[in-house]
Amino acid sequence: MKELRRDPITNDIVVLAKNRSKRPMDKVNNQNDKEVIEEYRKDCPFCRGNEKHTEKCTFEIKGEDGWIVRSVYNKFPIVDSLSEEIFGHHEVMIDTNRHNGNFYNMSEEEFFYLLKMYKDRYVFMAKNEQVKYISIFKNFLRRAGASLIHPHSQIISLSIVPPEVENEINISKRYYEKNNKSLYEYIIESELKYQERVIYDNKDYLLVVPEIAKYGGEIRLFFKSKKRFEELKEAELKELGRILERLFKKMYEVHGYNPFNICIHTHPINTDEKHEEHFRTHIHIIPRKYSFGGFELSTDLYVSSINADELAKKLRFD
Amino acid sequence: MKELRRDPITNDIVVLAKNRSKRPMDKVNNQNDKEVIEEYRKDCPFCRGNEKHTEKCTFEIKGEDGWIVRSVYNKFPIVDSLSEEIFGHHEVMIDTNRHNGNFYNMSEEEFFYLLKMYKDRYVFMAKNEQVKYISIFKNFLRRAGASLIHPHSQIISLSIVPPEVENEINISKRYYEKNNKSLYEYIIESELKYQERVIYDNKDYLLVVPEIAKYGGEIRLFFKSKKRFEELKEAELKELGRILERLFKKMYEVHGYNPFNICIHTHPINTDEKHEEHFRTHIHIIPRKYSFGGFELSTDLYVSSINADELAKKLRFD
Repeated sequence: MKELRRDPITNDIVVLAKNRSKRPMDKVNNQNDKEVIEEYRKDCPFCRGNEKHTEKCTFEIKGEDGWIVRSVYNKFPIVDSLSEEIFGHHEVMIDTNRHNGNFYNMSEEEFFYLLKMYKDRYVFMAKNEQVKYISIFKNFLRRAGASLIHPHSQIISLSIVPPEVENEINISKRYYEKNNKSLYEYIIESELKYQERVIYDNKDYLLVVPEIAKYGGEIRLFFKSKKRFEELKEAELKELGRILERLFKKMYEVHGYNPFNICIHTHPINTDEKHEEHFRTHIHIIPRKYSFGGFELSTDLYVSSINADELAKKLRFD
Repeated sequence: MKELRRDPITNDIVVLAKNRSKRPMDKVNNQNDKEVIEEYRKDCPFCRGNEKHTEKCTFEIKGEDGWIVRSVYNKFPIVDSLSEEIFGHHEVMIDTNRHNGNFYNMSEEEFFYLLKMYKDRYVFMAKNEQVKYISIFKNFLRRAGASLIHPHSQIISLSIVPPEVENEINISKRYYEKNNKSLYEYIIESELKYQERVIYDNKDYLLVVPEIAKYGGEIRLFFKSKKRFEELKEAELKELGRILERLFKKMYEVHGYNPFNICIHTHPINTDEKHEEHFRTHIHIIPRKYSFGGFELSTDLYVSSINADELAKKLRFD
């Protein structure tokens, strides 16, 4: 018995086929990547001491032994300032000076510094009035799209609102017009009522395993307030850092050293229309355990065999 | 200098950023999978001799030593007949009895048998009047979504027209209404005029590397006639088999033993509206060399650093 369901925030169509998680898999090539051992590598452009291999530094936080986080221009930008059609800036934010650092082993303090850097670069890029959206994301390991192993995040300012964000905003706007209530508030209330999919809840944030999502095992962190990402104060960044630190320790227990993506979805900027009433900043945390196959590519239908309640239970923390 | 371009048949938005193909990659984890050596494995449910491990057989072509291609019910179907909302049948089509067989080393004859099986199962599934679309696709290797190594294809009948096919049909329909000409005819004419992206051309089929596509290195095979997939005659299936055999030998030279997907996009069935005037059957052949990262997941924008002309030149055959 299969159900056809829509992800309420994206409208993605997902076939619930829970038995498929039991299908046999050839063992070959199913291993996780090897964990990085060395704290420093001579040939890594992002390691502390190898600064000459990167472009201009735009931000850093220093510790006793040198920088701890650091952002630089991307040498191979997706967008640049040379085109009329699409332009913006693309920076690489080095998560930690440690080559073997990663979200699974970073301390609360390291997460806090990282988030401070996210905010600093966001605020800087937002000063350009032609910028309509700023995308912060992270790829960890090759299968999640990372070309270099040293842990890093990316920030890209864009002269357009990207289609996926526009899609989410349109959906939440239509919901608001119809129900006179924010879709995100409705989701937060429903998840708190149901409880089984909640990983963590406090006054500012709710962390859940959504029942319906195209990426198996996706986790979503919702802002409860109407704050934009760049409006987070020092204490809120600290709290967010603590949550990420706890969450990724749990994710490591469940999935091991697994590739993942982080996508921050916040509000467009420098636009006439405001979306504070209906839209909420949120973060998609996407383990890349499974690859989409020809069915998904061919149909734009997705298949979910995840038990969200069970996964949330395993990931839950205080 | 970046350009923002739309894939004409899907409307996907692609940023052309050709310099990015030069960015450094850590060597680790970038290797291809190991090629399979054994022609038979005792523990493989799809090998000849292990038929007791599969569900009911629905089709086979026999050679002197036993079956050469064979289709069976999928033990872990994405859809089944138990739901009102979405239903259909899901069969696995075993490409060849050889465990070490694959599109890179299959003979013209093996491709012909495989396509005969595709057509047979399609025609069978199309007899159910509630079926609206039949999707044929193939996943090769884990990174392309395959759970078992033994080469196999899949066919799924659906009670709905999947969103991706509906999207392509709507685009070609709008183009036809506006221009009184098929978008696919226009693309075929343009590619033949430009020539540099053409891999192979004959009276029935055109094979090209599209300039704009979200998947780097994608190849498209267009039907020149208005034929639906299931209308292909024996001689046309043979010719298609010959083209695939030649193409995959070339792909092996260029990409090595690389994961890929095949997606056949043909016409919906049992619907009132006909799309023969504007839509054309076509096949997406998608090497899975690169993984989408947080940028693509977060924005639904894609980045192309492929030189289509150069790739087409390398893949060209007679």
